[in-house]
Amino acid sequence: MVLESEALISIFDNAVMLGDTVTESTRIFSHRPFKLDRLYKSLKVTRIDPGCDAQQMMRITLDVLDANRSWMLQADDCWLVHDISRGRSIAGADPTIQRSQATVMIFTQPLDLLSWARFYEVGCHAVTAMSRIIPPQSLDARIKNRSRMAYTLAEIEVKLVDPQAQGIILDVHGFVAENKGGNIFAITNGTLRTPRSTNCMEGVSRDTVLELAQQLAIPIAEADLLPYDLYTADELFFTSTPYCVMPATKFNGLPVGDGKIGPITRKLLAAWSELVGVDIAAQALNQLHRPTVDF
Amino acid sequence: MVLESEALISIFDNAVMLGDTVTESTRIFSHRPFKLDRLYKSLKVTRIDPGCDAQQMMRITLDVLDANRSWMLQADDCWLVHDISRGRSIAGADPTIQRSQATVMIFTQPLDLLSWARFYEVGCHAVTAMSRIIPPQSLDARIKNRSRMAYTLAEIEVKLVDPQAQGIILDVHGFVAENKGGNIFAITNGTLRTPRSTNCMEGVSRDTVLELAQQLAIPIAEADLLPYDLYTADELFFTSTPYCVMPATKFNGLPVGDGKIGPITRKLLAAWSELVGVDIAAQALNQLHRPTVDF
Amino acid sequence: MVLESEALISIFDNAVMLGDTVTESTRIFSHRPFKLDRLYKSLKVTRIDPGCDAQQMMRITLDVLDANRSWMLQADDCWLVHDISRGRSIAGADPTIQRSQATVMIFTQPLDLLSWARFYEVGCHAVTAMSRIIPPQSLDARIKNRSRMAYTLAEIEVKLVDPQAQGIILDVHGFVAENKGGNIFAITNGTLRTPRSTNCMEGVSRDTVLELAQQLAIPIAEADLLPYDLYTADELFFTSTPYCVMPATKFNGLPVGDGKIGPITRKLLAAWSELVGVDIAAQALNQLHRPTVDF
Amino acid sequence: MVLESEALISIFDNAVMLGDTVTESTRIFSHRPFKLDRLYKSLKVTRIDPGCDAQQMMRITLDVLDANRSWMLQADDCWLVHDISRGRSIAGADPTIQRSQATVMIFTQPLDLLSWARFYEVGCHAVTAMSRIIPPQSLDARIKNRSRMAYTLAEIEVKLVDPQAQGIILDVHGFVAENKGGNIFAITNGTLRTPRSTNCMEGVSRDTVLELAQQLAIPIAEADLLPYDLYTADELFFTSTPYCVMPATKFNGLPVGDGKIGPITRKLLAAWSELVGVDIAAQALNQLHRPTVDF
Amino acid sequence: MVLESEALISIFDNAVMLGDTVTESTRIFSHRPFKLDRLYKSLKVTRIDPGCDAQQMMRITLDVLDANRSWMLQADDCWLVHDISRGRSIAGADPTIQRSQATVMIFTQPLDLLSWARFYEVGCHAVTAMSRIIPPQSLDARIKNRSRMAYTLAEIEVKLVDPQAQGIILDVHGFVAENKGGNIFAITNGTLRTPRSTNCMEGVSRDTVLELAQQLAIPIAEADLLPYDLYTADELFFTSTPYCVMPATKFNGLPVGDGKIGPITRKLLAAWSELVGVDIAAQALNQLHRPTVDF
Amino acid sequence: MVLESEALISIFDNAVMLGDTVTESTRIFSHRPFKLDRLYKSLKVTRIDPGCDAQQMMRITLDVLDANRSWMLQADDCWLVHDISRGRSIAGADPTIQRSQATVMIFTQPLDLLSWARFYEVGCHAVTAMSRIIPPQSLDARIKNRSRMAYTLAEIEVKLVDPQAQGIILDVHGFVAENKGGNIFAITNGTLRTPRSTNCMEGVSRDTVLELAQQLAIPIAEADLLPYDLYTADELFFTSTPYCVMPATKFNGLPVGDGKIGPITRKLLAAWSELVGVDIAAQALNQLHRPTVDF
Repeated sequence: MVLESEALISIFDNAVMLGDTVTESTRIFSHRPFKLDRLYKSLKVTRIDPGCDAQQMMRITLDVLDANRSWMLQADDCWLVHDISRGRSIAGADPTIQRSQATVMIFTQPLDLLSWARFYEVGCHAVTAMSRIIPPQSLDARIKNRSRMAYTLAEIEVKLVDPQAQGIILDVHGFVAENKGGNIFAITNGTLRTPRSTNCMEGVSRDTVLELAQQLAIPIAEADLLPYDLYTADELFFTSTPYCVMPATKFNGLPVGDGKIGPITRKLLAAWSELVGVDIAAQALNQLHRPTVDF
Repeated sequence: MVLESEALISIFDNAVMLGDTVTESTRIFSHRPFKLDRLYKSLKVTRIDPGCDAQQMMRITLDVLDANRSWMLQADDCWLVHDISRGRSIAGADPTIQRSQATVMIFTQPLDLLSWARFYEVGCHAVTAMSRIIPPQSLDARIKNRSRMAYTLAEIEVKLVDPQAQGIILDVHGFVAENKGGNIFAITNGTLRTPRSTNCMEGVSRDTVLELAQQLAIPIAEADLLPYDLYTADELFFTSTPYCVMPATKFNGLPVGDGKIGPITRKLLAAWSELVGVDIAAQALNQLHRPTVDF
Repeated sequence: MVLESEALISIFDNAVMLGDTVTESTRIFSHRPFKLDRLYKSLKVTRIDPGCDAQQMMRITLDVLDANRSWMLQADDCWLVHDISRGRSIAGADPTIQRSQATVMIFTQPLDLLSWARFYEVGCHAVTAMSRIIPPQSLDARIKNRSRMAYTLAEIEVKLVDPQAQGIILDVHGFVAENKGGNIFAITNGTLRTPRSTNCMEGVSRDTVLELAQQLAIPIAEADLLPYDLYTADELFFTSTPYCVMPATKFNGLPVGDGKIGPITRKLLAAWSELVGVDIAAQALNQLHRPTVDF
Repeated sequence: MVLESEALISIFDNAVMLGDTVTESTRIFSHRPFKLDRLYKSLKVTRIDPGCDAQQMMRITLDVLDANRSWMLQADDCWLVHDISRGRSIAGADPTIQRSQATVMIFTQPLDLLSWARFYEVGCHAVTAMSRIIPPQSLDARIKNRSRMAYTLAEIEVKLVDPQAQGIILDVHGFVAENKGGNIFAITNGTLRTPRSTNCMEGVSRDTVLELAQQLAIPIAEADLLPYDLYTADELFFTSTPYCVMPATKFNGLPVGDGKIGPITRKLLAAWSELVGVDIAAQALNQLHRPTVDF
Repeated sequence: MVLESEALISIFDNAVMLGDTVTESTRIFSHRPFKLDRLYKSLKVTRIDPGCDAQQMMRITLDVLDANRSWMLQADDCWLVHDISRGRSIAGADPTIQRSQATVMIFTQPLDLLSWARFYEVGCHAVTAMSRIIPPQSLDARIKNRSRMAYTLAEIEVKLVDPQAQGIILDVHGFVAENKGGNIFAITNGTLRTPRSTNCMEGVSRDTVLELAQQLAIPIAEADLLPYDLYTADELFFTSTPYCVMPATKFNGLPVGDGKIGPITRKLLAAWSELVGVDIAAQALNQLHRPTVDF
Repeated sequence: MVLESEALISIFDNAVMLGDTVTESTRIFSHRPFKLDRLYKSLKVTRIDPGCDAQQMMRITLDVLDANRSWMLQADDCWLVHDISRGRSIAGADPTIQRSQATVMIFTQPLDLLSWARFYEVGCHAVTAMSRIIPPQSLDARIKNRSRMAYTLAEIEVKLVDPQAQGIILDVHGFVAENKGGNIFAITNGTLRTPRSTNCMEGVSRDTVLELAQQLAIPIAEADLLPYDLYTADELFFTSTPYCVMPATKFNGLPVGDGKIGPITRKLLAAWSELVGVDIAAQALNQLHRPTVDF
């Protein structure tokens, strides 16, 4: 257990040398348990041996959370991240063999929602990138990994249109795939639709929304969506671990529906807030309105 | 300038968090100059500001080389690597904006050729991966980057066939693209062919071979190659910065040509050795036959 | 009606000259009726005129079965195969026109399950091929045909990993398609999933499993499956006419689930055994343990 | 050595069961030698062991030619075909392993040019198929094989437009690939263009035309051709072993150029006739005008 | 409001210069209301400002209908079409900016069903085109637009097979997409299947059929259909605004089912006729049997 | 011959109803002859019968030019456009049959270069669209046609980044294809490269540049270009009929080379100016600096 400033790894670690790291990010609401299933799926598929099983990993993780409890403000939740690389890269050696112990990085961070907070009030501007998502026969997005340069470059393209824009990356057929770290939902005539999990990362937040929608009797469909579906949607939103649900009220410069955050989006956000016992939007907006703290 | 054991970066660096690092690797032969053009091309396309221009970078690099001169054995060459990330990742901030200084990592390493050395004598076994290369509309391989999980996973697939195999990754159309860190050449009826640079990284070693072939009046062609072309080739070899030219004498379990290293491959390796004033194969085999040193 | 050793056709038959043969294979359980619908669909789409309608074909087929009844051991079932080619190829003539009678080959064979029998106990090793399935816009896999060189070559690739491996061929997008003569099922969180029939042959065994699953109230889905889905599945199995259900306990070198044959696979195999009144696994294992007979 | 009527193989041969046969067809002009290189390339890539090396195969082949010399008319050339399958298919056994000797079929046939003869005078009608060629990542067309159902079905589609039409099959991107057994050439502004060998079978006749063109100083290019290029070509022709060069004067119902056989096509056919010492067109037309013989 | 002969636009209008027109066609049954939703969706996605909102457009449209009421025969319905272009194209100006008022063209026409009428009795011949539909990442077919040259050219290809044929255009993967102005339905084993709306225009008639099928308890599925599915279907029909439901009894030269119009097709046509209070087939056949009038 | 304000066509013309118009645009420099070859190629492929042959069309065209000679200012050149549609669309009739005379529209316009003029001094900003070009198996870009909605929509996307941006449309593989009405050239290390004509319209201006480059001994290559090639190019320019050569000095927000118009671009523009005896840039800039005239 080290301080943030002492959390260092070798520049010869495979995390740096090859982006050979799997990851999982969780938002820790007050008392909510979390799971490490997906992390262990990613570890299996990439054949990284983390050096301990899921139970031991859970114990270590809880220790990390305990150690960080002190600094967490009452009203704020935190962000819990696991990064596990294939360990030390050895010059000239086969990089696919894990010769050393895996590098296990676990950290919590206060949830900084500043960059998204105002979108809970006015919605964000969703913009499609020019580049296309990495197809699954090259790298399956469901392996949550840290080789994410393609996502960063796509997001940069999106910012050319609007520096505040949130990106939508299409797949090589032009279907809507995912955001750089989140999923996309469109509501048309009361039905909630989202891309199939074969061309997007299967986010935990995505699952939560699908479950909440089912509880609220909102019809749902995993579908092939095209930009046309987003242009003509009544409502649009992103999901991701930090912000949960982020309404989009503009798509490629045109208003989504009437240009305001829609009722089903609000309903889902309210249901989620209730589920976790935290007013998610209020918590974020609160950050916006209090004096900034530099972490 | 720090010792290898002190070459550490924060786990919050974008190098770790997003594989958001461009790189360039050079093999430093005795007196050979090297260039940083490609590194600056990668920096431009990824919009990473390294904090200094190419001239300054060259000066710093030469300092690093000087500092490491002492440990370099007479007979061995070294490996010079630049890794430049977008700097510190800040929780909740737009990762596409470089808020801090870039993280510039420059290091030299002794060239460990042990894993390849015996291939100079008997040739290696080239095997095609099941997965396909990331297509350029997702991430152009000519951006030399450290988001290389897809390459590692492809290489692991290849090792299922033969733990010593060297991988050949096809593109989404089934054309031969590249090796995890090198290029592929086939010789058929005296013509040297290699995949077009639109679906492979444009390696410096690849360029060197093309130039040497031109000097030796060996006809060359950038072409769409299929596994059929490799099965029926007379000779096959890989190129990469550490080993320069690595003959392959087996492809997917079948002998290439007569199963021995071919004359054109030998000619190119000899020409390269002459160019740099070092017997490249002998140097590697020398490592194989002397007592191992653990770095 | 001729003996096996006398079942000969001309080397100028379109079966040999063009692989221009449609086929249907049926496993004849004790008293089970069988259908010729699919055979007649294949005949229609390929425009081969078999020279008799489905009823007549059924009568001839029953005669063939009768003639072979004597040699069939009590405990063993048999394999019934129809092969119908476009008939004699005439030098220089348009091969798409059927100038002569179709060549109708009908035969039964004892079901030799030796190569699969032990997989009922320990499961097989499923391995993905490097090549991709023929896409339906080139040749629809639902036309059951004898132009199967692509399948043989893919299966050879798979054997490079493990000579006992059973192949999984992906489509050109990287989605799981089919085995060289069978279908693939994955079970994850209790749901049984199999590729859509648009990129695999629609096997009779596949249909049987889907029906049995429905009867057993196991949720089923035709889906786009990727290798990731197989790596992270709890259970995996193949279906094909000879072996019905063949568990796979290893995928590309990694254990499937806990590496043992799973409960839903067992349940489906039991249901099938009950349906046909034959303990399918026992019958196969019985072959394994009795003295080999060379047919 | 058997008579044609006795040239039979088992219906259990892999030739029949799996279309698992490689082939090579040669047109034997009066005194011309021929080569077996391509046949041995196909055997290598498919891993079929023919049981003898190329020299022995040549001796056997010459014996077959000798034995058939008697019936060959003075003026006619013959067709020499090799078909080599993986041998006997054994029920339940792994079809990818060659357990028995390969089945080697070698035969000569009189060249029946009746179906093409009149095209030497008026040109044929080239028509594109609706289906697309098998892509090389599924089965490389350069493996000359007998799994050709896709070609037969494409040719049937073409005959829907015109029962005399000669088919042009496009690849999955819409580029011109090949004819069911031949190659396609277009002449525009004096340049002779033909599809790259990565999406067509690399016919011997194709090579001959490229060599003749070079000798005649006709500019040549391997290129991606689209239907547009054929619609707007000045001349169009097919090449294949039996007919050598076959002019096409109509494409999808529109005249090619002025609708007559063009000068460069004539020049190439003349050069070929000179090369082999036979007036190729006259020989074919001769067949047309003499009393039909049924072989 | 002008006479047909006076309905002229400038040749400099973007309708002519760029095919930059969105459209909507409606068949006006006796008293049926119609909607302009789709038209406004197309306008939104293409960013054409029609100069009035949907309500105003409805009022103008009703005026057009009123003005044309006089000439409409009792028994005939009419065709109502909206064409809205981006207005005047100005030489040298950015064509994507709408500098002038949109050109709004609204007209009614008597429904001339002559070319389809006899198909209600005998069914039509459906034929697949050689070219492939424009993929949605190039232009989404759900934007109902007048840039339809690709459809015209595909239809011309189809007419090469049979001048009366109705075209079926496949997508770039070979899946059935749409007809030049209609949708395609196949019935197999009692289930009604039609391509997903992601690769076809989402016709109003298509929706009507899906709704009628639901009311009639006919199972429906949006699916990936291949030519194989049409070859082996029991029934096949097209839907489009003018003819509603058009049975196809032949597909690429082969009979569909028993070659007669099927019971489910008849049922759906009857239900539609009932819905609109007009015997749709009778009305068309009536046109066929009365003296032709040239409009 | 009518005045511009009287140049009207029926809204029932296929030009309006189906975008079924082929076109050719020529810039008429002082005394330069022009050709109608391409127009007649487009007419042939689309099977539109213009009602007169190329010679007659030329005569009519020269008459149109003569009639407009009076208004042409001394210093300005003009724009000559042919638009030929399949004629009148008849309700209910097969639109692929040309029942009436083709609609032949020929007009000249003063060359308004205002929107491009300043780019001769500072270069323009080239930006890639999100959508992809129509692939040639759907509609070959070399058919110069007026069904251009896809181009307009792509251009609108580009304007989201910068209202002055000039668009670059990629093909479905991500390769650089074309501009909405022009071609793209990149210069890297002295070599001039441009996309192959299989995925772009083969502009006359493109040909002119290739010819001028050859005369100037500038190495040229038709190649698969990716955005990476444009990001790292030394110079970049567009070609199109109105502006001839238009330098781009910014690509997706980054400077091209040093951000200034490059020497080879200038050389080519100078050579073109010399060829036609008009200082092309000066002529455009002259328009910029004189009082605007509204046409």
